[in-house]
Amino acid sequence: MTNVTRYRDQFQAAVDTVRQEGRYRIFRDIRRKKGAFPRATWFKDNLEEKNITVWCSNDYLGMGQNDCVVEAVKSAVDAAGTGSGGTRNISGTTRYHVQLEEELADLHDKSASLVFTSGYVANEAALSTMSKILPGLHILSDEMNHASMISGIRNARTHKHIFKHNNLADLEAKLKAIPADAPKLIAFESVYSMDADIAPIAEICDLADKYNALTYIDEVHAVGMYGPRGGGVSEQRGLMDRIDIIQGTLAKAYGMIGGYIAADKVIVDAIRSLASGFIFTTSIPPSTAAGALRSVRILKITPEVRSQHQERANSLKARFRAAGYPFIDGDTHIVPLMIGDPVKCQAISDRLIEGYGIYAQPINYPTVPRGTERLRFTPSPFHSDVMLDELMSALSQVWAEFELPREKVA
Amino acid sequence: MTNVTRYRDQFQAAVDTVRQEGRYRIFRDIRRKKGAFPRATWFKDNLEEKNITVWCSNDYLGMGQNDCVVEAVKSAVDAAGTGSGGTRNISGTTRYHVQLEEELADLHDKSASLVFTSGYVANEAALSTMSKILPGLHILSDEMNHASMISGIRNARTHKHIFKHNNLADLEAKLKAIPADAPKLIAFESVYSMDADIAPIAEICDLADKYNALTYIDEVHAVGMYGPRGGGVSEQRGLMDRIDIIQGTLAKAYGMIGGYIAADKVIVDAIRSLASGFIFTTSIPPSTAAGALRSVRILKITPEVRSQHQERANSLKARFRAAGYPFIDGDTHIVPLMIGDPVKCQAISDRLIEGYGIYAQPINYPTVPRGTERLRFTPSPFHSDVMLDELMSALSQVWAEFELPREKVA
Ligand SMILES: Cc1ncc(COP(=O)(O)O)c(C=O)c1O
Ligand SMILES: Cc1ncc(COP(=O)(O)O)c(C=O)c1O
Repeated sequence: MTNVTRYRDQFQAAVDTVRQEGRYRIFRDIRRKKGAFPRATWFKDNLEEKNITVWCSNDYLGMGQNDCVVEAVKSAVDAAGTGSGGTRNISGTTRYHVQLEEELADLHDKSASLVFTSGYVANEAALSTMSKILPGLHILSDEMNHASMISGIRNARTHKHIFKHNNLADLEAKLKAIPADAPKLIAFESVYSMDADIAPIAEICDLADKYNALTYIDEVHAVGMYGPRGGGVSEQRGLMDRIDIIQGTLAKAYGMIGGYIAADKVIVDAIRSLASGFIFTTSIPPSTAAGALRSVRILKITPEVRSQHQERANSLKARFRAAGYPFIDGDTHIVPLMIGDPVKCQAISDRLIEGYGIYAQPINYPTVPRGTERLRFTPSPFHSDVMLDELMSALSQVWAEFELPREKVA
Repeated sequence: MTNVTRYRDQFQAAVDTVRQEGRYRIFRDIRRKKGAFPRATWFKDNLEEKNITVWCSNDYLGMGQNDCVVEAVKSAVDAAGTGSGGTRNISGTTRYHVQLEEELADLHDKSASLVFTSGYVANEAALSTMSKILPGLHILSDEMNHASMISGIRNARTHKHIFKHNNLADLEAKLKAIPADAPKLIAFESVYSMDADIAPIAEICDLADKYNALTYIDEVHAVGMYGPRGGGVSEQRGLMDRIDIIQGTLAKAYGMIGGYIAADKVIVDAIRSLASGFIFTTSIPPSTAAGALRSVRILKITPEVRSQHQERANSLKARFRAAGYPFIDGDTHIVPLMIGDPVKCQAISDRLIEGYGIYAQPINYPTVPRGTERLRFTPSPFHSDVMLDELMSALSQVWAEFELPREKVA
């Protein structure tokens, strides 16, 4: 008998609190079908199988079912086996890892890059290590930054300043208040994935120049999707050379798993040498690196996929606009439909999947602030007009059923 | 132009310090050959290819090249594509994830399990979350615990007590000093991978009972390799039911990537609901879950692989003993050959791979304490007698060349 019985009440209380707040999560058990994405199978209650259309995947471009990527993965598994078998330093660095890092450095026009097991770990490990290299560091962090950045900054245990979301005046006020000779780093995202807005990158870089701050950008929701070669919003706007550290993921537009930073060689070398979350963990499998390499290379030379992606997002937004749904009408590929209540948000999502085979996961606290609960739609190039029709028809029925308001349409 | 120039000296200084301490890491760029493991190719300086034998992989049982595991991965990629496309909550839970978690719970005879992107993240996320659930928690941590546990405990920001390695008297003294009604958790490993020794698990559980502490064991270097079904040392010793939280990896004996905890459902549910490192990151690919599932199932029913593994380790230890090499003669499958100087350790490793095609990575600080630098050998069932002969012959020449002492042989 373990001792858990003595502590059971406390674990139960933690779960109960989550439940009472309407944010207890039941993971939908699905199976994607390669070649048919975004169609998939939902295993309802472990019993029943149901066909669904996935509207909330971050496999934004459907690269997870790209035949060339799939072939790259399979042939690497055939050549080298499955796991890497070691940390990067202890037999876990392979040809595939080396080539992928060269490719990512090239993508962002930096002299080096470093691959981590995830985008989360990339942010956590890189940011938490910066204060070891720059003692007395002041980190300025956008208030809407992702949990992984928050965790890295918290674990850096150094001076921290949260500035208002995308607010240059507030950022400058905070920069000004820091001693001029103190080391500073501004951490922000390009595309904010829950609000679908984009940071004023050039202006942030101007402030960084004025106050001698390093710049750290999370392009997780932009790499592969923006810029002539998929280098992200900083590439699209011609600003890559003004950002010191560009962070990205291989798990969204690139359709694999893993994360990275791209930066000057000396920055990468210092983080590589000091970051616990990089050093003490098994490296990504050779086949993961091979698949990611292929995916990055494909997206470098197929800008038409990016246009199709934007066209689909614009189509959905046009329909939402016409129907008067309360969505965030931003400049990105992400379409958040606001509900504003966790229980209702869950109920609508349940109704959509059960009644109509439409899978849009409710996004509740702690992923978004309480009171801003939403359904977040991410149309890909593979979401056809027929699927858009299906979605609009389902939504209009559910909207009526739940007696939800529509906005006055101009 | 970025601002890195202003900070370059500090990044350079960080790297220089690492270099001066003789622990600057140059990753060996290799390519494993499926079917020929532990043979591999080394890409020397990006130019020359050289055949090598890997002696330092943590693919302990060679499952990374197991045909059934490889087939499971490839067929899942064919069925479901590459990446999962989402966090566990947002379209990233698939049949494969659900089945894998059921299998791991069964392996450890617990009511639930939870899969993370790595063993590192499993430790970091689970331990750092415990203090949120149990306010005022006291964590007792073995001084030799892995970096990932140290990081999780540090980030828990609660009372922390480091006890001497495997030292029951010291652990009890520390337990006794904590208020009787305060919540407590003892965190330790079963197999310590750098020193090749094993914790006194039963006695630690006795103390946990006496002082009402939860027990958390890292079985990363034991799962798949110890116990009738590969449940680790706690299974081998019939102690699984006395451990509250068993943590493991899919990246070593199971030949894939990913990590997990297995525990009572309520513990898993609380951590699942609260741990940032679990919630805010893309889940492992369906094919990774499928490969791991197959590997766990295979190793459950093939105890003979575990016997072969131990036999190979014992063979190597017998040869080292006979030759008088200063190795740690422990009860595990890990054979550390002590050098005790980082520069010499690197030089010997270089000589072995360049002159003899023997790849044993030097293990330096911060992985092991300074002054205890070593070469760590991990013979697998695929390391043949011929390979053992090759190794012994190479070692004896290098030993003479470096004028290293041998121990008096009895
Ligand atoms: C802004 C942002 N950064 C980082 C991450 C983490 O990336 P990954 O899924 O590769 O861990 C996410 C989401 O998962 C994210 O939304
Ligand atoms: C004791 C211990 N725990 C955890 C880990 C981390 O596991 P993973 O490689 O799956 O991240 C390692 C090594 O990598 C380890 O040696």
